[in-house]
Amino acid sequence: MEEIRVFCPATIANISCGFDVLGVALDAVGDEMVVRKTKTPGIKITKIIGQNLPLETKKNVAGVAALALLDKSDYTGGFEIEIYKNIKPGSGIGSSAASSTGAVWAINELLGKPFSNLELVQFSMEGERLASGTAHADNVAPALYGGFTLVRSYEPLDIVKINTPKELYATVIHPQIEIKTADSRKILKTNITLQNGIKQWGNVGGLIAGLFTEDYDLIGRSLEDHIVEPIRSILIPGFNEIKTNSIEAGALGCGISGSGPSIFALSKGEATALKVAQAMKNTYQKIGIDYDVHTSKINPIGIKKI
Amino acid sequence: MEEIRVFCPATIANISCGFDVLGVALDAVGDEMVVRKTKTPGIKITKIIGQNLPLETKKNVAGVAALALLDKSDYTGGFEIEIYKNIKPGSGIGSSAASSTGAVWAINELLGKPFSNLELVQFSMEGERLASGTAHADNVAPALYGGFTLVRSYEPLDIVKINTPKELYATVIHPQIEIKTADSRKILKTNITLQNGIKQWGNVGGLIAGLFTEDYDLIGRSLEDHIVEPIRSILIPGFNEIKTNSIEAGALGCGISGSGPSIFALSKGEATALKVAQAMKNTYQKIGIDYDVHTSKINPIGIKKI
Repeated sequence: MEEIRVFCPATIANISCGFDVLGVALDAVGDEMVVRKTKTPGIKITKIIGQNLPLETKKNVAGVAALALLDKSDYTGGFEIEIYKNIKPGSGIGSSAASSTGAVWAINELLGKPFSNLELVQFSMEGERLASGTAHADNVAPALYGGFTLVRSYEPLDIVKINTPKELYATVIHPQIEIKTADSRKILKTNITLQNGIKQWGNVGGLIAGLFTEDYDLIGRSLEDHIVEPIRSILIPGFNEIKTNSIEAGALGCGISGSGPSIFALSKGEATALKVAQAMKNTYQKIGIDYDVHTSKINPIGIKKI
Repeated sequence: MEEIRVFCPATIANISCGFDVLGVALDAVGDEMVVRKTKTPGIKITKIIGQNLPLETKKNVAGVAALALLDKSDYTGGFEIEIYKNIKPGSGIGSSAASSTGAVWAINELLGKPFSNLELVQFSMEGERLASGTAHADNVAPALYGGFTLVRSYEPLDIVKINTPKELYATVIHPQIEIKTADSRKILKTNITLQNGIKQWGNVGGLIAGLFTEDYDLIGRSLEDHIVEPIRSILIPGFNEIKTNSIEAGALGCGISGSGPSIFALSKGEATALKVAQAMKNTYQKIGIDYDVHTSKINPIGIKKI
C-alpha cells in the first residue's frame, strides 16, 4: 500500500468527572487525511483544506507526531500528508488529536503496522504537547482505540478501553468563541479538597461501572464534575442554561467537552440526542451566540480507512 | 420466622485507590449473630461473646443500627440480639460494620424484608457514626450487597455493585496494635493536589474496569494510593516490608485495609493468596510483631442466613 485515506474522529475529553483521564470518540464529526509514501525522507505536509494551519512540519501537530514515529522507525523513506479539516481548532472536540493520531495511524498502516496502539498514543501526545503545552492523552487515546477510553496512568502510560453502550449518543454544541487549552488549564487550581476528590473518584467509578453494565441511569448520575466545571464553565457563555435545557430535553448528563468551549451531552437513543441538539440551539439562538451543533453515535473503533 | 442466625462478613474498605468509596466482602472471616423476635418493644442485646463490648443498646453499633430501622418500621414488638464476635474491633476489617449490618439484615428478614438493601445501608451507617464519628458506608455496603461495592455518592446515597472476578482472593494480616478510625482520619489532610487526584481517579477507573473485565493485571496495576497510604502507612509498623514481600510473593497489589492497622493483599488464585499470607507472617515474625492472618475468597453475596 502506497497511499491511504483515513477518517479521524472528533473526541470528547474529560466527560465531566474524568478530568485528564476519560475520553470518547465520535462518529459523525471528524477530519480526513491522505497519507502517501515518498522516496524523499521526512514528513511533508502538502495541503491543508478547511482551516488556516501551518504547513511547516515542526509547527503542525500532525507533522510533529509523524516525526516522533519516524524517529522510532527504521523506514528510510518519507511521507506526504494532506489534511482535510472539518474540526475547528480550539473548539474543544479534539481538533489537534484528530490530526496527530490520523497521521501516525495512517503511517503505521502504510508501514505494515510495526507499532502498537499504545505507541501510537505516545507519538500523538507529541502533537498535543505542541498544541497545548501539555502532552495529554485523553483525546488521542479514544481517537486511536475508539469508544470510551481511560488513561489509568501517565507514568507509565496505561490506556484501558471501556465498553460502549449500544444506544449511547452524543450531542456537542460549539459556541463560536475561542478558548485556548493552555489558558483554560491556567485557571485551574493546583489543590482540591479531599471531599471533592472523593466525589470525583466515586463518579469516575460509577461512570465506568455504568458503561460496562450499560446502565444509562447510572451513567447519567455519574456525569458530575465538582472540580473543573465550576471553574471553567465561567468562561463559556450560557453554560448553565445549555446544561439545564439539555437535561430537561432528556439528556443523561451534560458538561464541558475537553477544555471547552464546546458543551457535550450524552443521551440514550438518537431521538433524544436530536431533541437535546434542538434545545441547545434554541438556547444559543435566544442568547444570540453563533454555534455549530453535532449529534453523533459513539464511534466504537476510532480512526478508520475510508 | 421467629429467630435467625446470620454470618456477618469482614470487609476491606478503600482498597487502595478508592478512599471512602470502595469496599469488598470476605468469606472466611466474620461474626455470627442470632436475632429473635420478642413481644417487648425495642432492642435488647442479650449476649456478646468473644469481645468486651457494651451491651447497652444505644452504646452498641448493632443496637443503634437496629433502632434506626425500628424507627422507620411499623412493627410494634422488639428484638433480642446475641453477638458472637470473631472480628476484633479496631482491626480495620469492618468489625463495627459486621455488627450493624448483621443486626439490620437479620431484623429485615424476620419482618419479611420490608426494607431495601439501600435502606439497610442507611440504618447501618448510624452504627458507623457511633463507632467512628462519621456515617461512612464503605464497609457496610459490601457487607450487605456482597462482592465489591462502590459508594458513588453519599448525597444522595448511591451504591453500585461491581462484578467479582472468580479467582480473586484476599489475604489480610492484622498486626496487634490499635489505631482508632477517628484518629486515623484526623491525620489526613483537608486538601490534596489536583495531580494526585487525577492519579487516584485514573486508578479507581482502572480498578472498576479490571473487575468487570476480570483483567487481573489491570486490577493489580490499579491498586495504587497516592493520597491516603503515604500518610496512614506511617502508623503501621512494617507496612512497606509487608507490601514489598507480598508483591514479591505474587500478590496483585497490597494496601491498608480501611483505616488500618490491617494490611490486605489481593491475589489471583488461592495458592498465591496463601503464599502471600506466609510472606506476611514471615515479615512480622522477623520484626517481632504479633498478628492474625486470614486468607479468603471474595464473598459474592454478603451477609447470609446460617
